[in-house]
Formats: sequence, structure tokens, C-alpha cells
Amino acid sequence: MGSIDANPASGTRDFLPEEARHRDAVFATIRQVFEAHGFAPLDTPAFERLDVLAGKYGEEGDQLIFKILRRGEHEAAGDADLALRYDLTVPLARVVARYGSQLPTPFRRYQIAPVWRADRPGKGRFREFYQCDVDTVGSDSLVADASTIIALADAISALGVSGARVLLNARTALRALVLAYGIDAALEATTLTALDKLHKIGVDGVGRELTERGVPKSSVDRLTADLAEKDVTAVLREKIATHPDGTAGLKEIETVINIVQNSSDVTIVYDPVLARGLSYYTGPVFEVVHKDLDVTIAAGGRYDGLIGMFQSQSIPATGGSLGIERLLLLTAQAEHGAASVDILVTVLDEDDAPTMAQFAARLRAQGLTVELYSGGGSRKLAKQLKYADRIGAELVVLYGAHEREAGTVVVKEMRTGAQHTFTPDTLDTAVNALWAKRPPFPPS
Amino acid sequence: MGSIDANPASGTRDFLPEEARHRDAVFATIRQVFEAHGFAPLDTPAFERLDVLAGKYGEEGDQLIFKILRRGEHEAAGDADLALRYDLTVPLARVVARYGSQLPTPFRRYQIAPVWRADRPGKGRFREFYQCDVDTVGSDSLVADASTIIALADAISALGVSGARVLLNARTALRALVLAYGIDAALEATTLTALDKLHKIGVDGVGRELTERGVPKSSVDRLTADLAEKDVTAVLREKIATHPDGTAGLKEIETVINIVQNSSDVTIVYDPVLARGLSYYTGPVFEVVHKDLDVTIAAGGRYDGLIGMFQSQSIPATGGSLGIERLLLLTAQAEHGAASVDILVTVLDEDDAPTMAQFAARLRAQGLTVELYSGGGSRKLAKQLKYADRIGAELVVLYGAHEREAGTVVVKEMRTGAQHTFTPDTLDTAVNALWAKRPPFPPS
Repeated sequence: MGSIDANPASGTRDFLPEEARHRDAVFATIRQVFEAHGFAPLDTPAFERLDVLAGKYGEEGDQLIFKILRRGEHEAAGDADLALRYDLTVPLARVVARYGSQLPTPFRRYQIAPVWRADRPGKGRFREFYQCDVDTVGSDSLVADASTIIALADAISALGVSGARVLLNARTALRALVLAYGIDAALEATTLTALDKLHKIGVDGVGRELTERGVPKSSVDRLTADLAEKDVTAVLREKIATHPDGTAGLKEIETVINIVQNSSDVTIVYDPVLARGLSYYTGPVFEVVHKDLDVTIAAGGRYDGLIGMFQSQSIPATGGSLGIERLLLLTAQAEHGAASVDILVTVLDEDDAPTMAQFAARLRAQGLTVELYSGGGSRKLAKQLKYADRIGAELVVLYGAHEREAGTVVVKEMRTGAQHTFTPDTLDTAVNALWAKRPPFPPS
Repeated sequence: MGSIDANPASGTRDFLPEEARHRDAVFATIRQVFEAHGFAPLDTPAFERLDVLAGKYGEEGDQLIFKILRRGEHEAAGDADLALRYDLTVPLARVVARYGSQLPTPFRRYQIAPVWRADRPGKGRFREFYQCDVDTVGSDSLVADASTIIALADAISALGVSGARVLLNARTALRALVLAYGIDAALEATTLTALDKLHKIGVDGVGRELTERGVPKSSVDRLTADLAEKDVTAVLREKIATHPDGTAGLKEIETVINIVQNSSDVTIVYDPVLARGLSYYTGPVFEVVHKDLDVTIAAGGRYDGLIGMFQSQSIPATGGSLGIERLLLLTAQAEHGAASVDILVTVLDEDDAPTMAQFAARLRAQGLTVELYSGGGSRKLAKQLKYADRIGAELVVLYGAHEREAGTVVVKEMRTGAQHTFTPDTLDTAVNALWAKRPPFPPS
């Protein structure tokens, strides 16, 4: 078989123990929060029949679907019949179509799972990455929209990420905004795409882009003048309130803000220019940004038209996603990855392995993480101490010819080098006591 | 988009909340045990470059690899450049080749992850299923072999599955067995394949099969005579011990049994006819069977030739797999899936949603799982109580016009129907007290 490129496939990653542990811990924390909010887990296959996914993501998205070759005689023809999931929303729609009557209404599910996109790999862009979705299917109540935001904010906070800020808007308020400035409804989508960039490209940038997109000068001038006001939100809100759609939208926003503010520490504010992939959102839309880092760490909204796609009917739905890969980066320095092995039980003579295995089992029964040294080759003490250091063991259990003769066992503290001698029968309690009073972590 | 087949792709499964929760709980328990033994998690991508997987699983296995079409212009040509992982061993070999120097020696890793095989789907056979592997790479010590068995046995026991029994053998003892009955070394593999079936097809069956496979009559006769003995193990052991390879093999087996017996409650015995996919095993091999159900729930062994495949060198390695899908079935009746929502906080009037959201947040802060009713439509009490029943809530918080006026809040016990009235400010402590003295679960 010989030598071969041993890197993972382009756009994918291997997660070695420390990183894998960190990811597991982050996923576990998020799962715990979602469960505490009464969301239920769902798991769907990595691949779907191609006809389930095809045509669901627009032309650009469709080209990023990884297709799987048919087997047997069809393989030679290059036919594909399966495809890797591109997101977690289309599988959810399929599940609702398949099991509708078996699910409670509303159906509140979360899913934390990888998706695959044949994107051009680049800095921070992957072909395999995790999505983390919470959705409520079958409810048109704003309580569902607010509950999504509360659960996401609680998850972010449980991860130890502070400084989250929720920006909220509503589809109807956006429509009213466009109409309020005399812009034709036909230009609504393109206008909102430009407006959505306000925080990035500034008022002048938005003005230029609106003009390029064919918005009449008079509208652009009025809009940019208002965008330059000190309290943009108040000015736009007033304009929006002049339209019936706007009044309804502002009421939605107020309702959601009231619910969220009453049950979460997160800051939530109305952002009149927040639009987000507007094409499928039908109600409230939100984005959770990190105040200092100016990055989006969660987002979502109501999308009443999507979940019923396989049933040719409209099923109300609202939900959101945590930007899990970004949150993993933000929490990477946390202690999650650090905890590994508490105690290494050495094997200085293979004849003593049964005795040492028993020591290990007894210490494990005390709730400690205990590794029995399993390396081969020579059984030199120095080598095993080096290994203990490598895996971050705090204590090392030693038992050599001297101890066997004396009827003792030695426990070495790796950080201080201190050695303690016990009789084998008191090892569990003695080590437990040592463990309880070990110096605080980290040692640095 | 219209109606479409909403089933998952053939050979794959959707896991609805109860089952997903059960699976998550089982995986978490296993991870915890492996961590407690000092094994470290590894995560690799779902797909590998095709050249990494091709040619690694024999002709039959190769045909079961799911291949992924290239994108863009190559898609039309039907070329594949990627493939879904078929197992967790080849990715481990690639990781060892890629990151060798960054990993401790020995490298002790576990991985619990799905693999994909384009097998004919059938009863209990899936195209997407989980594997759960522990392996120790870079150690030729029998302590590593024994540690694998101890960790797997502890995991099985932590899952509440009792009656596990470990059958152990060694490659060299198997070789000696063949030689002891005067069978040519060239017939070793075919002989052992037949012998491995002893527990299934009986002595006569093995005899017939050996003859069909070209083993000389004199050898078949002597072997089947011994297999019919009351204490087969003792008889075969004696024969095996007459060859130097056999002595070495029996010593290996004795060493592993001594270590395992000293640190685990699991029963471990020597099984002289256990062979298992012998082709790649080079040392001890084992199988963990469920005594009553007569099914294999874990298996493994030493395979020194495999992990170095990408480096053209031999790297000692030993490991095992839990039959995770079978263990999931064996533990399916456990209580894991049962726990869901503790408390449903109703919303009888949408204007009260902020108040109710706050109640929910306060109760959640007590460590309870609390769902805020997020359904739409009419806000009828009966509908929300029915929903509380559906999701298994134990307590329901009620707050309607009467309570608002009286300045109270009502908590209903779903199982008894008892209602308790509190003032809003004492809700947390009152509910906590109610929760602590709720009737024991399950109610049936």
C-alpha cells in the first residue's frame, strides 16, 4: 500500500484528542441547555435520496451538494441517487412529512450534526462542518419565536461567552420600511439586501448600492438622510409606523422583546435594517452578535413556507442556529480540553500487571480517571514518568521490586515530585485524600 | 415541490426524540467509561479521499464503499474522488501516519461514529450504522490487550448489561492447534474458518466442513474425536502445548486472563476454537458474548500489521469494538429515553407570555427542565394540558385571569390532578419542594 497523502480530504479536519474533547464538551453543554428548555433531539441520516435535496437550495446551493454514486452496474454510468445532507432543515421537513401524526404539536426539536457542502475550501471555510439548530414546527405564536431566542442566548451564556446582543426585526416591518420611502414593492428584496449591509459599508455605501440597484434618487436621498440621523432606529420606527404592515411588525417585535427581556439576561434590541436571507423568512428575524468581536454567533427567524415543502401545505415554523464552529473558536481557550488522565498506574514489571490492573480498577471505582500504562518495550521508570507527563497525569502509582518486598506502594505527585508511601490496602482512600488536596489547577 | 417519498433513504434510519435520547445516553455512558480508562477521543471526517480507502477491505468490501462524485465538469464524467468511511480503522491508520510525532506512545484512542456501507439493506442490517472502537497503537505489551478487554467489559457493565462473558484465544495457539493435528500450514486459514463455527454447527458439522475444505481424513478424525470430548478446552490445550508456538500462545492467554480477572467482574475464559477474521489478527483475539442471548456484543484483538499501512512499516496495535447497535437494542427498555420535560409553563393569554417566560426561567435556574408552551392557535387550557400529557410533563404552571386578579399562580400535578396555589414570589421554592416529594417514577 506504501506511502500516500495522509492529510484529511480537502476542506475536512481531523480532531485530535484535545480538540475532540473540547468539541464534545461544547456540544454536551448546548444539548443540556436545549433539553432544559424542553427541546427534543432528532437524528437523521447523513445522506438523503437525491430527489429529497435537489432543487431546495437554489441554483448555487444545488451545485454544492455532494452526490453519491449508485452501486453496481449503475456506477459505471456515473449516476447518483443519494446525496450528503446540505443542512438540517430539509431533513426536518422530511421528518415532519413522514411522522407528522407521531410528533407532538408544536414539535420542538434540536439537532447538532455535521453537514457537507462542496464549497471551495478556504480560510475558516469547510466542506464538513457542524450545524446546531433549534426549531419549533406547528406554532404561529410569537412565544415560539421568543423561546428560540431565549434558548440560544442561554446556550451561549452556558458556554461562558458573554457580550451577546440580540438584534431583532420582522418581515412586515421591513416591507413597511420599503413602502414608507416610496420604493416599489418589486424592488423590496434588492433594497433590503443593500440596507442589510449598513453596519458594514456605512450610509454612503448603502446609498451607492441602492442607486446601482435601481432605487429612484428621491427615495435614496430620503432614506440615506434618515440613516445618517443620530437615533436611526427611532427615526425609521416612526416612518414604519405610518404603514399598517409596519404597525403589525413593530407590535411583533415589541412582543418578542418583552418575553425575552423578562426571562434572560441577554440584551435584545430592535434593528430596523436587519434583513437576513429574507427570501424565506416570514415573521420575526434575529441575529445574535458578539458585542466586542462584531461577529454573528447565532441567527434565525420565522419561515412559515418551508417545512411543509413535502406536503404542499404551509406549516408554521420558527427557529434558529448557533454558529457552532465560531463558538468553538471563541471557547477554545477554555479548560474543557485540559482534563484528561488523573492517575497513571505504572507497570514496572509485566509480572506485576495483574496487581497494577487491580490498583487501577480500585482507583477508577473512586470516580477517578485512571490509565494503566500499556506501552511495550522496556519497562523503564523514566520512560513511564515521561509518558505520565505527556498525558497530563497528576499522580503516578509506582510498584517495583523494592515495594513488592516491603509490602508497600508509592504515589508520586507529578507537579511537586513529592512521593508518598502507603500499604496496598489503604491505597484507594490515601489517593483519594491526596487528590482532594492537590494544588489548584492550572499550575502555571 | 409537491409530495415525495418522505422515508429516509433505504438502509438508513431517522431517530425520533425518544430513541435519539436513548442513543445519546448510551454513547455518553460509553465515552465516560473510556475516558475513565484514559482512552482519548478522536474524530475524523465522514469522507476520505478515495485512494485512502480503496484496496483496504478486500474485493467484497471495496464494492461496498459509497463513492462521492466529483463536482463541476468532472461530475458529468461520473468520476469519484471521495468516499464515505467504511470503518474507523483505516482513518486511524491515516491519522497515525499524519500526526505520529504529535501523539503520545502508546496512542490510546476511542471513536464512536457512523460508518457507511452499500450493503443490501435487510433485517437489522443498515447502510449507516455506528461503530465504537477502542485501540492502543504503538504497544506490543499484553497489558494493552488486557486493558482493551477491561475497558469494553466496564462499558458493557456501565450500560447495565449483565451476563457478559469473554472468550479469549491467541493467533499462535491457533497455529499450533492446526499443526498439532498434522494439518498442513497451507490449510490453516480454511481449517480455522471451519473450527470457528463449532458453537454454531456442532462437531459433525465441523467435520463435514473440514473434509470439504480438503483437510485429510486422518486429521479430521483425530480433531473431531477430541472436539467431542467433555472438556474440549483441556484436551485441545494439551495438544497445543506440545508445540513451541502453542506454549507461547497459551502463555499470552494466561497473562491476559490474569490481568483481566484481577480488575474486572467479567468472566473470561480460554476458547481454543475462537478464530475471528483471523486474516489480520496477529496476537490475542477475543469475543464478548452475552451468556443468555448467545450474541456477540464486543470483539477485537491484536493486529500488528494494519496500522502502519500508510507508512510501509509495522506498528503494533490492539483494540476492540463494542457492538453498539446491538447494545442499543439490549438497553432499549432502560429509562434513558423516558426523561424529558419536568414542567410545562402554560400561556393562557399571550399578554401574559412575558410573565410566564419569567416563571419558566426561574424554574429552569433551579435545575429543572422547563418548557414554555409555544403552541399557537387558541390558548385553551384543555389543549395545553393535553400537550403537557403528551410530552410527559409532571407539573404544569397555570396563570389565568383569576390568578392574575388574585395575585396567585397555580401548579398542577399531572399524575394526581392535585392543584396547589402559591404567590408568584414563592413559586421557585414551592415547586422545588413539590418536585422533591413527587411520587416515584414510573407511575404505572
